[in-house]
Amino acid sequence: MITIGLDMMGGDFAPLEAVKGAAAFFAENHTTVQLALIGDEEKITPLLATYSLPATQYHIVHAPQVIEMHEHPTKALKEKQQSSIAIGFHLLASGKIDAFISAGNTGAMMVGALFSIKTIEGVLRPTIGAYMPRENGSLGLLVDVGLNADCKPENLNQFAVLGSLFAEHVLKIKHPKTGLVNLGEEEGKGNILAQATYPLLNENKHINFIGNIEGRDILIDKSDVMVCEGFTGNVVLKLAESVYDIVKRRNITDEHFERFNFETYGGVPVLGVAKPVIIGHGISGTTAFKNMINIAQRMIEVDLTEKIKESFK
Amino acid sequence: MITIGLDMMGGDFAPLEAVKGAAAFFAENHTTVQLALIGDEEKITPLLATYSLPATQYHIVHAPQVIEMHEHPTKALKEKQQSSIAIGFHLLASGKIDAFISAGNTGAMMVGALFSIKTIEGVLRPTIGAYMPRENGSLGLLVDVGLNADCKPENLNQFAVLGSLFAEHVLKIKHPKTGLVNLGEEEGKGNILAQATYPLLNENKHINFIGNIEGRDILIDKSDVMVCEGFTGNVVLKLAESVYDIVKRRNITDEHFERFNFETYGGVPVLGVAKPVIIGHGISGTTAFKNMINIAQRMIEVDLTEKIKESFK
Repeated sequence: MITIGLDMMGGDFAPLEAVKGAAAFFAENHTTVQLALIGDEEKITPLLATYSLPATQYHIVHAPQVIEMHEHPTKALKEKQQSSIAIGFHLLASGKIDAFISAGNTGAMMVGALFSIKTIEGVLRPTIGAYMPRENGSLGLLVDVGLNADCKPENLNQFAVLGSLFAEHVLKIKHPKTGLVNLGEEEGKGNILAQATYPLLNENKHINFIGNIEGRDILIDKSDVMVCEGFTGNVVLKLAESVYDIVKRRNITDEHFERFNFETYGGVPVLGVAKPVIIGHGISGTTAFKNMINIAQRMIEVDLTEKIKESFK
Repeated sequence: MITIGLDMMGGDFAPLEAVKGAAAFFAENHTTVQLALIGDEEKITPLLATYSLPATQYHIVHAPQVIEMHEHPTKALKEKQQSSIAIGFHLLASGKIDAFISAGNTGAMMVGALFSIKTIEGVLRPTIGAYMPRENGSLGLLVDVGLNADCKPENLNQFAVLGSLFAEHVLKIKHPKTGLVNLGEEEGKGNILAQATYPLLNENKHINFIGNIEGRDILIDKSDVMVCEGFTGNVVLKLAESVYDIVKRRNITDEHFERFNFETYGGVPVLGVAKPVIIGHGISGTTAFKNMINIAQRMIEVDLTEKIKESFK
């Protein structure tokens, strides 16, 4: 039995959507998973009855405080020790849960992941990625999307390994193709960072490096893992998100562009920390929560953390 | 009478589309413009008759050589002195034409612009931008989109001024709003470059600075001029271009997404050099060529070069 901690108070539609997400997860028969529902017991309990969660597969961990979206991450985590996020990281650090998921205050989740949970030895900087939908139905992973605004070549080289391990073991892509986001295809192109990163990726035995990719390749399946510093990655992610908004505003119905609704993916893990931590989109709904629990389960089952440790030995 | 030099041999569909573009331009009655059609006389002449260009409004400048798309820019420019691009820059530098347009080898155009034509005094680095279509029908300008992959805060500060002058005088936007592309809205967010650029833009009296903008704001009309280094800008431009490709592949017909067909804009000027130079997309068609001639005419008529000189005094 594995235990996944779920912050019931995180996200704009908490706790209702978190409860519905948990119910949707169990509706697909995950008998090996126990959920630790972390949040305000009084608010959660009536919803659990309504949505018929299987009684043997969850337990409530009461958390009387909530870190609100606008709060200062470090300050809030320090002052609100009884918040669902603080308790979640406490449970994760002490081994009472095997993964922790929250769609709450992103900054507090980052601070918690980086300071409550240790970075895996050898990892210079953990990273956070985002899925990019492709027309063939697959998902690519863009790393970093904002955690590391300024990077060194060694950082990008490590993001490539972390992203590849996630793509291989969690997204189930064999020998994931890894591309360096750049402004031209030819080797030698790029800013100083990209130019210096290329040879590192090219010599890296842990990844399947296919060379530079351009902006036009991000939304097609040229590579499975796309590596860049968090500044460019963040701009790209938010631009791609805005395409969905435009499509909706213009009443365009299209199966592929539906997949630009990044909310449905729920969230992506913080890669490089010693335990599975998943940070969700603030506007996560039922499907997002369900997907996040699924990803956490898969990360635990394939022991992604151990695989990362081995790669960084 | 103003004279605009047009490279008839540049672009994938040269010289036919260049001729059709010139014909389309004159069909809209531009009696004050004389075109210098630079290219292989034998190839151009029969087309001019077919498309009925007004005889008094053009002259042919014979150029027996062509710099092909794949050629090394500096080498080709040096060795092919009789190419349409080399002759074009010679005519521009000597004052025989008032602007030069080409959809040919981009690298050769850049080298020509930077070395045949002087940079305006005070401009540290010229820049090249791209239009971004907005749902309200307007165009925004993203600068830089690849000419300057590594930048200092002073460079971005100057791009903001150059972009604002272009937006004001050529795109006819009053007090163009200028935003700094960043990964968060709040002041203090960003990588080291963006953090150091913010106060410069904030104190810059030549621009209407509205603060940071995020990836999601690039395709809406939050700001008219969007400033970033050429690495991020290039990735953003090519990503936006690829959205059009996806829309087409999926047979989506939508008036707004039609405007993501960047080919129709033709090209954008190199901002910061002492004479108007416009570099077109390789796959420029009739409309693109017509639009480039229009933009060149407007740049000359409003004397954008002089306005830039005044700003940088």
